[in-house]
Amino acid sequence: MDIRNVVVAGGGVLGSQIAFQSAYKGCNVKVWLRSEGSIDRAKPKFERLKGIYLNTLEAMKTNPAAYCRGLAPKDATPEQLDALKAQVEAAYEGLTLTTSYEEAAADADLVIECIAEDPKQKVAFYTELAKHLPERTIVVTNSSTMLPSAFAQYTGRPEKYLALHFANEIWRNNTAEVMGHAGTDPAAYDAVVAFAEQIGMIPLKLHKEQPGYILNSMLVPFLSAAEALLANEVADVETIDRTWQLATGAPIGPFRILDVVGLTTAYNIGMLDPRAADPATVQGKVAAMLKRYIDEGKTGVNAGEGFYKYR
Amino acid sequence: MDIRNVVVAGGGVLGSQIAFQSAYKGCNVKVWLRSEGSIDRAKPKFERLKGIYLNTLEAMKTNPAAYCRGLAPKDATPEQLDALKAQVEAAYEGLTLTTSYEEAAADADLVIECIAEDPKQKVAFYTELAKHLPERTIVVTNSSTMLPSAFAQYTGRPEKYLALHFANEIWRNNTAEVMGHAGTDPAAYDAVVAFAEQIGMIPLKLHKEQPGYILNSMLVPFLSAAEALLANEVADVETIDRTWQLATGAPIGPFRILDVVGLTTAYNIGMLDPRAADPATVQGKVAAMLKRYIDEGKTGVNAGEGFYKYR
Ligand SMILES: NC(=O)c1ccc[n+]([C@@H]2O[C@H](COP(=O)([O-])OP(=O)(O)OC[C@H]3O[C@@H](n4cnc5c(N)ncnc54)[C@H](O)[C@@H]3O)[C@@H](O)[C@H]2O)c1
Ligand SMILES: NC(=O)c1ccc[n+]([C@@H]2O[C@H](COP(=O)([O-])OP(=O)(O)OC[C@H]3O[C@@H](n4cnc5c(N)ncnc54)[C@H](O)[C@@H]3O)[C@@H](O)[C@H]2O)c1
Repeated sequence: MDIRNVVVAGGGVLGSQIAFQSAYKGCNVKVWLRSEGSIDRAKPKFERLKGIYLNTLEAMKTNPAAYCRGLAPKDATPEQLDALKAQVEAAYEGLTLTTSYEEAAADADLVIECIAEDPKQKVAFYTELAKHLPERTIVVTNSSTMLPSAFAQYTGRPEKYLALHFANEIWRNNTAEVMGHAGTDPAAYDAVVAFAEQIGMIPLKLHKEQPGYILNSMLVPFLSAAEALLANEVADVETIDRTWQLATGAPIGPFRILDVVGLTTAYNIGMLDPRAADPATVQGKVAAMLKRYIDEGKTGVNAGEGFYKYR
Repeated sequence: MDIRNVVVAGGGVLGSQIAFQSAYKGCNVKVWLRSEGSIDRAKPKFERLKGIYLNTLEAMKTNPAAYCRGLAPKDATPEQLDALKAQVEAAYEGLTLTTSYEEAAADADLVIECIAEDPKQKVAFYTELAKHLPERTIVVTNSSTMLPSAFAQYTGRPEKYLALHFANEIWRNNTAEVMGHAGTDPAAYDAVVAFAEQIGMIPLKLHKEQPGYILNSMLVPFLSAAEALLANEVADVETIDRTWQLATGAPIGPFRILDVVGLTTAYNIGMLDPRAADPATVQGKVAAMLKRYIDEGKTGVNAGEGFYKYR
């Protein structure tokens, strides 16, 4: 099953990255967006990604620290990097943005659903999409918190539906967790694994449905434990991070990871636990602590400050 | 409060290391042991540690990878390393092994309790020790799983009693978590922090009692989550480790950490959860999985094989 014609639905943070990366790696990419307004909001994102890709490839000529796994082999020569810069330009020029289901669906080999994390919106999208899609098309969701089994029935092709879960800044953090539901056809699963490799990702295979996939299944309890130590005033941010780094050799500790993830995301994940509503519980103390940071605008690296300062 | 005269109670894995390291850093060290049999069992441990310290200091002259934080400054010259080797010999010669409470306690500034992780044994030890100890002496426990508040009343000096928790292979893994109970005198706490630094440890300060201290409070839920992914057959060992490494930049993933910790320790920690008795629960599946490895002799790095092979 050769995947060339890719549709990315949603032009948000992740949708724009996945579309750009797929185009960069040679796919014909159509970005399906809900409205003309969405098209206007998506365009500057692609502009920005073009700049990041070009600058990174240029920097990789001289600075080993600039290396991004999703963009080039480790030993790429300056000539090869220049050729890749031409691919960035071609990717940018080649992107098609459309609000038409017909246009997007017509010859799609793969649809990557990247719309907002709202089950109602996703169901509405899949239901309409199914009316236009060729039988052969595989559909994947990038959802971080929902399971493919929740949506399979709406796609008109449950056996060709699964999850392909990317990480933010995919040109650098090039992991892609591949997760089917019980009814996913192994052939569709394997085709998605091959596609992930084709666009420069490292596929990480799950044999079963698992909320949180592999990474968040470990990261969430780990980060929650660190948050609890801080909220309970057992130790300070620096001591907790240093303990983890010294003991495990990790380059950063939980609070630097939280600053990258973003405190708002951490707060939202924490609030999924009903105990977070009770201020007497650890979960409630953690939520209150994160809210204090967020209320002060300290939401993490992107804001210039979280648990640490970045400006 | 200057700490020079140190008593280490227990000559097991950690007791022998703490005694040797304290002597290496210039303390007068007496090792208190329960019986003549314990003395015979402890002696080869000190012999072995002497060899490790000497070999490591020698290797540090030429091999940066041999560097151990507990032994020397990063930039030590070959001459300085030779001087430190002489300190190793002096430490070895200077150790006093005794079964007498009187002899051990007489002029002790600090007693470090490192006897087996059994509350009854610890209570018996503290109760007898208290009869012989000068009023000024500080007492610390190296217990990994019990809280100082559980034993303070038996020491005859609750305000001078706290926890000082080392890590295995302390010459290399030189962290020392310092944790008081609610009644610990801050002056005793500070003296123990200073002592930890004096013997080459990095003190990690806890402001409150916390089961599992800082490190295990994060490590246990993290490793449990990884174990659950494997026991539930969501993904394989290599994929889980790789996911963690790629996403966080860590040098090793949870299953390599588990091989270092030892699968028997992981199993014992898991069995503290009553749910582990029910084979239908995740905890029960994890316990059964760990038991399969242990029954095959795959208990980790020390056995030559755990989740990975090491021979
Ligand atoms: N942000 C991350 O780090 C990240 C990482 C991995 C996976 N994800 C997943 O990717 C998906 C998108 O996340 P994002 O961060 O890109 O979100 P985002 O909010 O940046 O983008 C959401 C996109 O969906 C569009 N959209 C919203 N409602 C829609 C509807 N009814 N129909 C069509 N389009 C609609 C928005 O216009 C926008 O383009 C989510 O499922 C999320 O869980 C996000
Ligand atoms: N092994 C580790 O990695 C590690 C790490 C940190 C802390 N600790 C803690 O250090 C303490 C000792 O652990 P270990 O690994 O050295 O154990 P160990 O089994 O190697 O040694 C225990 C020592 O206690 C002695 N002992 C047993 N019962 C005694 C009694 N009734 N009276 C006097 N001595 C007695 C034994 O002879 C032995 O010398 C425990 O509290 C443990 O939680 C261990």
